[in-house]
Amino acid sequence: MVCIESKENNLFKQTKKLKERKNRSKSSKYMIEGFRLVQEAFKAKVDIDYLIVTEDALGKIDQFLLDYITEDIKIYKINESLFKELVSTENPQGILAVINMNIIPVNANGEFYLLCDKLQDPGNLGTVIRTAHAAGVKGIILTKGTVDIYNEKTIRSTMGSIFYIPIQYDDDNLSLVKNLKEDGFNLVVTSLDTDKDFFEEDLRGKVILTVGNEGNGVSNEVLDLADTKVKIPMPGNAESLNVAIATSVIMYEKVRQDRLWDSE
Amino acid sequence: MVCIESKENNLFKQTKKLKERKNRSKSSKYMIEGFRLVQEAFKAKVDIDYLIVTEDALGKIDQFLLDYITEDIKIYKINESLFKELVSTENPQGILAVINMNIIPVNANGEFYLLCDKLQDPGNLGTVIRTAHAAGVKGIILTKGTVDIYNEKTIRSTMGSIFYIPIQYDDDNLSLVKNLKEDGFNLVVTSLDTDKDFFEEDLRGKVILTVGNEGNGVSNEVLDLADTKVKIPMPGNAESLNVAIATSVIMYEKVRQDRLWDSE
Repeated sequence: MVCIESKENNLFKQTKKLKERKNRSKSSKYMIEGFRLVQEAFKAKVDIDYLIVTEDALGKIDQFLLDYITEDIKIYKINESLFKELVSTENPQGILAVINMNIIPVNANGEFYLLCDKLQDPGNLGTVIRTAHAAGVKGIILTKGTVDIYNEKTIRSTMGSIFYIPIQYDDDNLSLVKNLKEDGFNLVVTSLDTDKDFFEEDLRGKVILTVGNEGNGVSNEVLDLADTKVKIPMPGNAESLNVAIATSVIMYEKVRQDRLWDSE
Repeated sequence: MVCIESKENNLFKQTKKLKERKNRSKSSKYMIEGFRLVQEAFKAKVDIDYLIVTEDALGKIDQFLLDYITEDIKIYKINESLFKELVSTENPQGILAVINMNIIPVNANGEFYLLCDKLQDPGNLGTVIRTAHAAGVKGIILTKGTVDIYNEKTIRSTMGSIFYIPIQYDDDNLSLVKNLKEDGFNLVVTSLDTDKDFFEEDLRGKVILTVGNEGNGVSNEVLDLADTKVKIPMPGNAESLNVAIATSVIMYEKVRQDRLWDSE
């Protein structure tokens, strides 16, 4: 096993660079931290480039990863203070994996997509991806201006769901969304400019559900393309809902409608 | 205006103590930080004991609070480094309010209650309260072992909804829940031990919806009292949902069912 013993080590420097979005994009690699996530990554059979572990974590690796680790996975040992420089978690578990991105294209074969439109909070994006995975969403489309999906906090909030769901960036012209619309997809947005509650609209079949920005909602460019506008009623007169909550509630209304349709 | 000039100041010491749950309980006071929350507290007409503000924040107070502040609100001035000792936020806005708790009893007059059963994460509890407020929940019941509702992070996540919703602690015997059940309330829990999806059950009328612990779900004591067990289907085969998401999805299924019932 190779040891990383100084900040001048090349692999150390390359790995540390992955804390920044631009370096993740350039290298098409990202980093995950902690036993649970690394285990999920192995289970999901994503393309793991290498692991970096502390001595302490090495001792615990057996119980978590023994079933998954194959001989050709490179493992590098590192001391704790160097490890802490690589990650942002306050109490890291001493294990990280660097993963080669594998952006699976979103295509019109699925029936349910999610469009994240300038969503800003990493935790919200992660939670939305986790629910999307559960609800059977076939792919996530991200507009420019959405927080990086490979942000450490986003990945943690997905609880591993990020490894299972195709993700694609749309261009400035929203070409991907327009193509899906031509294929018969119904672009659904939440809006204050409608009287229709989300459960009054037909959400069955081919749907792209939009998640807007926390403060400003769905952008004008996406609103212009929308086929269906819905609102979430608030009988209790609160001012607003958290965006991940609002999106999840509508995702599950679609699950409900699709199930009832199938059983008819 | 009175100035707080040292750590030995009595009001400073009393206020700082409110960072701990036991002191909040003992004094029946809690603390909120930031312009937005203080403004929400005024709007909601809660019983504000006093404000503490930095010089910098005093200059901004007009645009945020002018419509709300009355002459009999006590305002104390403080310097920035002392202010930072009072709060936990990294970049505080320089304004805090100390509020006298006003625990409004939950009673059988409402139709929709939420039971938080050993929920641990302050952000989850806050998000659940925010959605509950929006969905028209009439009161929150907390079992022992649930994270403190007056935790700073919980309050921030409620976005002010905490000021509008009655909150009550149940005793070890769950007497309040048992009384509501005798009044005809349907105690609903999520469970893996059922084939019924949440949208297949009748959630109209008098319902207590249970939110369980993040790791362990609903406790056995509450499960034993449950009238209705539901699950949330996961067509995408994710392992689990975030507890605030799961609860919100079911809350809104009840909103949907009640609305359709009313319109029949």
